[in-house]
Amino acid sequence: MPPPVALLTDFGSRDPYVGMMKGVILSRAPAARIIDLCHEIPPQDVATAAFHLMTSAPYFPDDTLFVVVVDPGVGSDRRVLWARGERHQFLFPDNGVLGYLETREHLREAREVSNPELRLPKPSSTFHGRDIFSPAAGALAAGARPESLGPAAAGWKSLMLPRAERLGGRWRGRIIHIDHFGNAVTNLQAEHLRPGSRVRFGRQSLGPARRFYAEVPEGKPLALIGSSGFLELSLRGGDFARRRRARPGDPVVVD
Amino acid sequence: MPPPVALLTDFGSRDPYVGMMKGVILSRAPAARIIDLCHEIPPQDVATAAFHLMTSAPYFPDDTLFVVVVDPGVGSDRRVLWARGERHQFLFPDNGVLGYLETREHLREAREVSNPELRLPKPSSTFHGRDIFSPAAGALAAGARPESLGPAAAGWKSLMLPRAERLGGRWRGRIIHIDHFGNAVTNLQAEHLRPGSRVRFGRQSLGPARRFYAEVPEGKPLALIGSSGFLELSLRGGDFARRRRARPGDPVVVD
Amino acid sequence: MPPPVALLTDFGSRDPYVGMMKGVILSRAPAARIIDLCHEIPPQDVATAAFHLMTSAPYFPDDTLFVVVVDPGVGSDRRVLWARGERHQFLFPDNGVLGYLETREHLREAREVSNPELRLPKPSSTFHGRDIFSPAAGALAAGARPESLGPAAAGWKSLMLPRAERLGGRWRGRIIHIDHFGNAVTNLQAEHLRPGSRVRFGRQSLGPARRFYAEVPEGKPLALIGSSGFLELSLRGGDFARRRRARPGDPVVVD
Repeated sequence: MPPPVALLTDFGSRDPYVGMMKGVILSRAPAARIIDLCHEIPPQDVATAAFHLMTSAPYFPDDTLFVVVVDPGVGSDRRVLWARGERHQFLFPDNGVLGYLETREHLREAREVSNPELRLPKPSSTFHGRDIFSPAAGALAAGARPESLGPAAAGWKSLMLPRAERLGGRWRGRIIHIDHFGNAVTNLQAEHLRPGSRVRFGRQSLGPARRFYAEVPEGKPLALIGSSGFLELSLRGGDFARRRRARPGDPVVVD
Repeated sequence: MPPPVALLTDFGSRDPYVGMMKGVILSRAPAARIIDLCHEIPPQDVATAAFHLMTSAPYFPDDTLFVVVVDPGVGSDRRVLWARGERHQFLFPDNGVLGYLETREHLREAREVSNPELRLPKPSSTFHGRDIFSPAAGALAAGARPESLGPAAAGWKSLMLPRAERLGGRWRGRIIHIDHFGNAVTNLQAEHLRPGSRVRFGRQSLGPARRFYAEVPEGKPLALIGSSGFLELSLRGGDFARRRRARPGDPVVVD
Repeated sequence: MPPPVALLTDFGSRDPYVGMMKGVILSRAPAARIIDLCHEIPPQDVATAAFHLMTSAPYFPDDTLFVVVVDPGVGSDRRVLWARGERHQFLFPDNGVLGYLETREHLREAREVSNPELRLPKPSSTFHGRDIFSPAAGALAAGARPESLGPAAAGWKSLMLPRAERLGGRWRGRIIHIDHFGNAVTNLQAEHLRPGSRVRFGRQSLGPARRFYAEVPEGKPLALIGSSGFLELSLRGGDFARRRRARPGDPVVVD
């Protein structure tokens, strides 16, 4: 059975862009199993794509091919790359989007995707997702060898996951993502918490990190280590980000 | 061929939560056919999930496994359950979400999903959709016997479909869902209508129940028995709910 | 392997309408490969569906069955049709939605979908996507012969792609679609451009048609032939339509 193909893009759902990618993949690999990982990355927001890729990849089968098309440099001379990690493989633009994932899954091998025979004829300069990434994904899903994609590559860009800062006895992190429920995900992790640590957002203390939402009453804010391993700020039964006007980049302090 | 797996959640599309669930299911059942039933249930709105499950299940193949993750009690001691009905099977939190469906499909057998070997290692307390529901779904799709999930269960919660009220010679129902087109779906059904019955919303009469949209001119409101068997209020060629400011809970009267 | 089934509707994602269609298709064709082409067509906007179908179909495998349910006439006496083109096949309401595609893919054969045995029992008058289109799609995907759908049909409606107008030495086209990124897609094509042509929107010149976004600085507007072969107005790194208040129907001039 060919490996699953998981798509991560900023294409949204208003247009048939993702549908066209699937058409191209199925044209080359009729038995491909295609999974939508997420298509609502904010337009051209490479860091958010990097974050979701890092937190999602561990839950996918070995050898899954992630096709990452968040690509503000489309049409410029940025390279399209393929890489194999310890468990998965990736097609991605050389803009750093694999950087966060590399803190958890070592990359072993990379190639430049430059073989013109694996592109659509006359590729556009604005939709490489359809014209370059998808035919390559289809070829790989149909059994093509990575060597056929192009020459070995080295020296790709890697975004750095922004680290929490040490300030005296405190850690200061930042909100890096607001999710569908209004949870504010930060770059603080369990290693920044000690027994008795208290979490603060602006002037408000959220108390110690909790283990369950149900530890506080309905309508009360709380902090807990979320399902991705990062500290999240939540409102039980409500939308923390909307109520507290929290945004990506806002500081969060652990005392 | 394994049974289809249909996902019904309130996870939305902004995050990779649904994608992660699919990754986990495919990890256990590589040949699984996974269908998105709906992911735009309003956050934690168990009643809307119950309504959609009741109206959708009849259109799915026998033995389809519905995975319902609208779960405000995640992390508390509410149980995760599996049940088999006359035609389908279900994984769901014990919060009543199967109640409406039970008016149409009798449940024959239920089990508590408590076998730790069928969970991800170290399950989170906030994302049981990924850590408990999906591995159980994958195991079932791969042929595991329901007995392996955990002990037989009895006495689950069941939400009651809110009934229309009799008021003298009238029936008073309520809007229970606004759909994508602005149709206002009520809990009134054909049994509440007689020849000559007229439908009223607020002070406005919508006339008798129609059979087609095209029975009224463009831009006019109407009432008809919708595709789910419930009376709906619509605007031909427009958005009834937005124009009439209709909301779930608003009363609708049949004279 | 049965042909892929690609769904194009205006059903959105708030309701389980698309999910129900998939349930019906899988009930008749358990091995069907179902692709979401797009479900965010503006409600009842046949022209936008026609545009997306024309630009997307070329990227799908031979024999793909497109199921197009943008159907303001549902419940009236408009026909449901099946047609085979040079490479693909289509199920669609007789409202002109295949018209744009017919400028690129000749239709060879058509049938009226009228066989009551290929409908759900007691089809509703408001959801033919579920009750008529999907069972027919499932039957075809399971190997049914087109002859079984109903009698040969002729004389279907075809929307005309609105043409650019010649005004002295200029071409005047119109915006026909705003995409997820805020690009304004027009009905002007490469044939309307000559060396030295300049593109104008309202009083603003966007300069000559470019080949890449990166030919202009960040934050600057530009025009280029987009990935569908039509002239698009864009803002590098931004949302052209929001910033310039561009809407479908607005004129665009090539000097």
